Amino acid sequence: MKAAIVQDKKMVICEVSEPVMGAGDVLVEIHAAALNRADLLQKQGTYPSPAGWPEWPGLELAGVVLDMGCEAKEKSGFQIGDKVCALVGGGAYAERIAVPYELLMPVPKGLTLAEAAALPEAYATSYLNLFYEGHLKAGQVLYIAAGASGLASAAIPMGKAAGAYVVTSVQTEAQAEKIKNLGADSIIVQERESIPAAFARLEKEGRPVSVCMDCLSGENLGAAMPYMARGGYWIVISTLAGIETQVKLRPLLTKGLHLVGSMLRNRTNKEKRDILCALVKDMWPHLESGKIKPSIYKVLPFSEVNEAQGILERFENTGKVVMQVK
Amino acid sequence: MKAAIVQDKKMVICEVSEPVMGAGDVLVEIHAAALNRADLLQKQGTYPSPAGWPEWPGLELAGVVLDMGCEAKEKSGFQIGDKVCALVGGGAYAERIAVPYELLMPVPKGLTLAEAAALPEAYATSYLNLFYEGHLKAGQVLYIAAGASGLASAAIPMGKAAGAYVVTSVQTEAQAEKIKNLGADSIIVQERESIPAAFARLEKEGRPVSVCMDCLSGENLGAAMPYMARGGYWIVISTLAGIETQVKLRPLLTKGLHLVGSMLRNRTNKEKRDILCALVKDMWPHLESGKIKPSIYKVLPFSEVNEAQGILERFENTGKVVMQVK
Repeated sequence: MKAAIVQDKKMVICEVSEPVMGAGDVLVEIHAAALNRADLLQKQGTYPSPAGWPEWPGLELAGVVLDMGCEAKEKSGFQIGDKVCALVGGGAYAERIAVPYELLMPVPKGLTLAEAAALPEAYATSYLNLFYEGHLKAGQVLYIAAGASGLASAAIPMGKAAGAYVVTSVQTEAQAEKIKNLGADSIIVQERESIPAAFARLEKEGRPVSVCMDCLSGENLGAAMPYMARGGYWIVISTLAGIETQVKLRPLLTKGLHLVGSMLRNRTNKEKRDILCALVKDMWPHLESGKIKPSIYKVLPFSEVNEAQGILERFENTGKVVMQVK
Repeated sequence: MKAAIVQDKKMVICEVSEPVMGAGDVLVEIHAAALNRADLLQKQGTYPSPAGWPEWPGLELAGVVLDMGCEAKEKSGFQIGDKVCALVGGGAYAERIAVPYELLMPVPKGLTLAEAAALPEAYATSYLNLFYEGHLKAGQVLYIAAGASGLASAAIPMGKAAGAYVVTSVQTEAQAEKIKNLGADSIIVQERESIPAAFARLEKEGRPVSVCMDCLSGENLGAAMPYMARGGYWIVISTLAGIETQVKLRPLLTKGLHLVGSMLRNRTNKEKRDILCALVKDMWPHLESGKIKPSIYKVLPFSEVNEAQGILERFENTGKVVMQVK
């Protein structure tokens, strides 16, 4: 079968051996695979696939069930021919993949496979961090960093569906214009107002932030944290803007704040299954009713994998970039 | 009645008006009151009693029930004449106090009132932070900062009783000698080894720290945190060694660490009652069987309140300092 593998920090499509299916695995014919920023790190050699997964990138996909191991047959609840989407440790840049049944979800009714491929990583990450780690409740203020990212395109509508007042941030007015349709209640435009200044303003306006999902981090984190609401959770999910921050411990103490590091990728399949089941139960109805719409920036053919990654590298996209594999 | 009030940053015993008992209050004749470092801050004017409490210091006491409001009679489970100890927002440096029934506990069988007075603050703080905030489990490594403090004299045996491997720290060999009887598995002597170096060593030895209860904080916090166990909790309960720290966000992220600020004092009576009930259920049996012994450094008469505070100011004590009021 064909897969897109890393060669000299570029993606090259070539022949690789067929996946080997274990008892707990489901063999999936991949129709679409969505891109993530982690794929770029993997291309640079700093974020390898975890043990047990194909070496080529790709964290999420949608397709059709081709076959199942005996344990997967018994426990997965899926049938051959079912449309599924999956969260994987690597290997979605290919024609086929063997996926532990715990990591599969049904495709929401009414969505294309390209749309469904763009769900698992962003929706599972958002669900994990908003609800499991951040304990988000209706009426609270939620801050999602990097509003133009693929992740934010899931997290913003998910926060709205949960009844939060959703704040996000972008660099420029033009970006703010582009993401208006996601439904955030307030957009911080960083060329006009810094993140810490915006947090201070929100607190003054009686809307202190209770939960942050932050892929940027860096110095803004420590500077903005003192303005959070009592008992707030600041969830670090990546460190694109800096790997250190100066934390003021008095407000951390007196407000009972929480600074939490959280990755989806390094959790057990059991933990991931719990998250995915809760996600399907709570959020798939909103996707099926159209209350939440998947946000796709562009769908490209598999052969244009380097161009697809280029869109992320140039920070061009608002919403997810997807490759159509079949 | 008599109370010790703050005058010109000294304690002066003088006549004050009798406490006024509300429907939910229990009137307690105070026999003993224990000292806390917060009392010293209150004397300096930086840590006033919260609204609704007497203005004079004192966060914990033991004594005898003199009277009860109608709601307290119904809900407290206590009778007039019962021996009780209490966690209060202020006002224990006096002969009598009205305490909301939620904040009372029975005196463990076999303990004197002076011993019981030394329990509420240290035991409730330790219980809250080890189990509610820190999610401590048997077999995990627990770090308690400032091993010679009154708080550590409760937290170390409590950690041991919960099946943890308990590490603590002191400045000098002489202090290490003095606290040996508390039963810590390992004592870091800071004149020989820094906290971050000790955390790195513990990780190397296969004993990375899972839960920290830290009253010191400051730069050691950020420097030691990267060596914690996956999913670890660092609970900041005071900032005696510094109010800022540089946090490395990559280990926070990849290890899924939690940095949490936690105060007992600013929680609701409902929250405190939940903590106290769990504490009595889980830990009073250990105090009654002698598995945990309250650690009293010295008992002084109420008239020597300034000398009693002086012991804390000079960092002389290992274990709690108590005043005998009656």
